[in-house]
Amino acid sequence: MDKTTQIYGIRAIIEAVNTNEEIDKVFLQKGLRGDLIKELESLLRRNEINVSYVPPEKLNRLTKGNHQGAVATISPITFHTLEGLIERVQLKEKPALFLLLDQLSDVRNFGAIIRTAECSGVDGIIIQKKGAAPVTADTIKTSAGAAFKVPIAKVDHLKDAVFYLQASGIKVLAASEKTNTSLYDVSFNEAIAIVMGSEDRGISPSILKAADYTAKLPLLGEIESLNVSVACALFLYEAVRQRMNYN
Amino acid sequence: MDKTTQIYGIRAIIEAVNTNEEIDKVFLQKGLRGDLIKELESLLRRNEINVSYVPPEKLNRLTKGNHQGAVATISPITFHTLEGLIERVQLKEKPALFLLLDQLSDVRNFGAIIRTAECSGVDGIIIQKKGAAPVTADTIKTSAGAAFKVPIAKVDHLKDAVFYLQASGIKVLAASEKTNTSLYDVSFNEAIAIVMGSEDRGISPSILKAADYTAKLPLLGEIESLNVSVACALFLYEAVRQRMNYN
Repeated sequence: MDKTTQIYGIRAIIEAVNTNEEIDKVFLQKGLRGDLIKELESLLRRNEINVSYVPPEKLNRLTKGNHQGAVATISPITFHTLEGLIERVQLKEKPALFLLLDQLSDVRNFGAIIRTAECSGVDGIIIQKKGAAPVTADTIKTSAGAAFKVPIAKVDHLKDAVFYLQASGIKVLAASEKTNTSLYDVSFNEAIAIVMGSEDRGISPSILKAADYTAKLPLLGEIESLNVSVACALFLYEAVRQRMNYN
Repeated sequence: MDKTTQIYGIRAIIEAVNTNEEIDKVFLQKGLRGDLIKELESLLRRNEINVSYVPPEKLNRLTKGNHQGAVATISPITFHTLEGLIERVQLKEKPALFLLLDQLSDVRNFGAIIRTAECSGVDGIIIQKKGAAPVTADTIKTSAGAAFKVPIAKVDHLKDAVFYLQASGIKVLAASEKTNTSLYDVSFNEAIAIVMGSEDRGISPSILKAADYTAKLPLLGEIESLNVSVACALFLYEAVRQRMNYN
């Protein structure tokens, strides 16, 4: 792990959370007690930051510094707010194109999707704080650097983001096999946000229900699904194709 | 390495090559001499099978059997001939869709492409014997098993395959940035073979020159290319979309 992407020591981590440093995850030593550690734990809980309890050997491998039983990993990118992303598109002339990733867990798929999102002119990617693949060095490598170019927002609940997008006049399209509508029957001429589900479970039922439309890709063989980063590219480029006024 | 996918011993390998077993690669012990090894070497050369000269320790790791300085790895799938692939499509009503991979070297990209090819109804994938990513256990895993379903042909020279396809009435479309034509300006209503290049060098100049058309994907951001398996999916599904009579 790169030293520049971690913070160690309980007080340093408390300080980092309070000054809004982009903390991805905190590793705490198992069985640690004291007021300061309690303060850190409740702060992490309030901010919905992932915590792992690990043996001291794991922390010693993570850092050579005096970690006092606590090491935090920092995201190499700066996240945006959903409100900020929407404000930005309202100033543009072209209809917005957003991408929501629901519990996508593989960092390579995540990186591949960020790369395609950059190439297809996506205005922002929205992920949920809990359960989403983190932005790691691997994500950035697979994204071919696009992770530094496409704005990414982390939200508490993806379902609330769906409602917020809809309230802002943006239609939400869920990519799912559970429909008879083909992707090629959807119109992308208005502002739209595409939701892609996780590799194994697809889109959560509550988000599928909240979406304005659901569409699927034709599968002409026997294999029952495409790779999620491939399916995502096909949805995004259908928007590109239609908006280029091809028909 | 799985024992069921290897053969060892000089005579056994000579026999396998002569009976057309799908040998991927042969590992020979450095500095080995004798008539039998010379016979094997010239047989491998004539059949354009990849050979690696390695120290005996490497061979001992590959197999516990009495390898006599020679271990061959066998492809887990059976390859087709190009002629066979073309005969099969001539019996079908729908226009053919072939995919040529020019020196694609990453087994994961290869696997991902085979998966998408199966889903988009590709009639066959054509690769070159030398320089192409092998069909390994990783390829098959990434393909989600599609490697057993889509016929794959291995040819001596990809350029000759281009000429053979053209002589059979199949147009050849090269995916390359070196054109002003957009993918969305190409008609897929006739029989077509799509050529995708390698991750780093793209399509070989001689194949680019031999192709009937060249087309590129619009890139709306700053990143200069899409991942090859993503680009391939966008080409294949444009054929699917057009042939579904969407417009």
